[in-house]
Amino acid sequence: MQLQSPQLAKEIRRGDRRALSKGITLVENEREGASNLLRMLKPSGHAFIVGVTGPPGTGKSTLVDRLIELYRKKGLRVGVIAVDPTSPITGGALLGDRIRMGSHAGDRSVYIRSMASRGWSGGLSRATSQVIQLMDAAGFDIILLETVGIGQSDIEVVGVSHAVLVVLMPGLGDDVQVSKAGLMEIGDVYVVNKADMEGSDSMVVTLLSAVRGMKSRSPPVIKVSALTGEGLEKLEGAIEVVRTRFDQGDLDLKLRSVKGMIIETARWTLMERLSKVSQEEAERLARLVVRGKLSIDEAAARLAR
Amino acid sequence: MQLQSPQLAKEIRRGDRRALSKGITLVENEREGASNLLRMLKPSGHAFIVGVTGPPGTGKSTLVDRLIELYRKKGLRVGVIAVDPTSPITGGALLGDRIRMGSHAGDRSVYIRSMASRGWSGGLSRATSQVIQLMDAAGFDIILLETVGIGQSDIEVVGVSHAVLVVLMPGLGDDVQVSKAGLMEIGDVYVVNKADMEGSDSMVVTLLSAVRGMKSRSPPVIKVSALTGEGLEKLEGAIEVVRTRFDQGDLDLKLRSVKGMIIETARWTLMERLSKVSQEEAERLARLVVRGKLSIDEAAARLAR
Repeated sequence: MQLQSPQLAKEIRRGDRRALSKGITLVENEREGASNLLRMLKPSGHAFIVGVTGPPGTGKSTLVDRLIELYRKKGLRVGVIAVDPTSPITGGALLGDRIRMGSHAGDRSVYIRSMASRGWSGGLSRATSQVIQLMDAAGFDIILLETVGIGQSDIEVVGVSHAVLVVLMPGLGDDVQVSKAGLMEIGDVYVVNKADMEGSDSMVVTLLSAVRGMKSRSPPVIKVSALTGEGLEKLEGAIEVVRTRFDQGDLDLKLRSVKGMIIETARWTLMERLSKVSQEEAERLARLVVRGKLSIDEAAARLAR
Repeated sequence: MQLQSPQLAKEIRRGDRRALSKGITLVENEREGASNLLRMLKPSGHAFIVGVTGPPGTGKSTLVDRLIELYRKKGLRVGVIAVDPTSPITGGALLGDRIRMGSHAGDRSVYIRSMASRGWSGGLSRATSQVIQLMDAAGFDIILLETVGIGQSDIEVVGVSHAVLVVLMPGLGDDVQVSKAGLMEIGDVYVVNKADMEGSDSMVVTLLSAVRGMKSRSPPVIKVSALTGEGLEKLEGAIEVVRTRFDQGDLDLKLRSVKGMIIETARWTLMERLSKVSQEEAERLARLVVRGKLSIDEAAARLAR
């Protein structure tokens, strides 16, 4: 791979789709080659990264499709990473990409990659950070990162974004689920999707009072219907506020995303290290625990060393 | 805390519920105290651990309720840990425990604890392993561990179980979701819940062919209705097959669970270490990356060191 990398890097930088796919596969499967490739690519940090997260079934995928259309109308190149294991798109990686590509088929300026969650949860995150870097190097202007907002690990994936959209919908229970999942702390924009459903207005009111005081600036709450298009312009406007800051070189915004990627990658590195030693060594330590020679905590401390 | 631990350990070993709750809170919040407590408690590995996992909405919580009843009829003491962030029970920790306790209220031999997913995803896992050890020390015979089966991190939580029930239901899409999520590799028993729904028979057929050859012994596929009780005895029988092996001291079974707990705890230890250094150091490294002095990979490698 080392020999191939310079050529591959060159092709990715030219925006070659096949090269990009090859690069992503490399990132997903091979640590060394991926690091070499990224070193050669030197991603510029040009791409504006939008995280789209929220509970399953809130219509994140449809919304992402709308956002693609929106940015394409502005002439921007759009990369999409879908890491939502509950989404019909990621869940069915077999069909998903093809179905989704349907509406953007033939558009060379849209690149969609769905990533199955596999291996250590950190593995997903690391791959995500690296795929973002590849897409960035390939010249995409916007990267949409779709991830399901259940569980902390999924939520942390969006830590690499410059703007995080939290997508909710009416009837999610009494919002306890939302606050428990940590979604109330990460949004730059809150989206109440399926605006036509009963209860959408009261959901907006609830959210407005929930987000007040959550951050130094209260994030906007916007009612949309990804299906009919209602409210999408307003949503676009809210994202543009953040994108303008990004384009003006806002350092905090850049640092936030880079920091997120560093942490995600470091986490993965640690998990990989653990999984390499773990099987045989864990087996040996487990025997000691079963024989009463060691506590589980002591065994874990040895394994983590 | 060091001073309190001997007394607390004594009370937990007596099966005192308030002491157990105190111990669990300790485990969730404080590393040192928890390790001391566990060292004193020396969990015996008496408890049989049943993991109950599957996609959201398949009725895991109701099934767990049925299993509690079942084991209570046998005179066994049952501990329940619910780490399903999508479950109405965990999601609403405020209400959840109380609602659920409703049906087992006053039964001193049932202890239910729901755990919100917070901090590093590994944090959840570590706490889970330690809460299991506490419940084990407190003399519970059965520990039911309910976790949502989306994403690898959730799936790995059930690695600490002696028997894993994968709960599915008709109409989950074309099962791609299930196989993608890694659920087809971890089940000791497959449960098709909501047996009255259309498509449950064909789901059983699909699963039977999917599990064939997955393990050395094909795991059983059982159609139940947690709501009406249909099929529950058959399910109980399938779990009893594993429990009998456990009671006979099957070493492989013991090792599997202990190994799972060691790995989960080690993972948490690493993540905790990372989160301690990460914020300031990650910020510093991120600045170097933004200035082009370092790649994200190099920064991550430094952070992980």
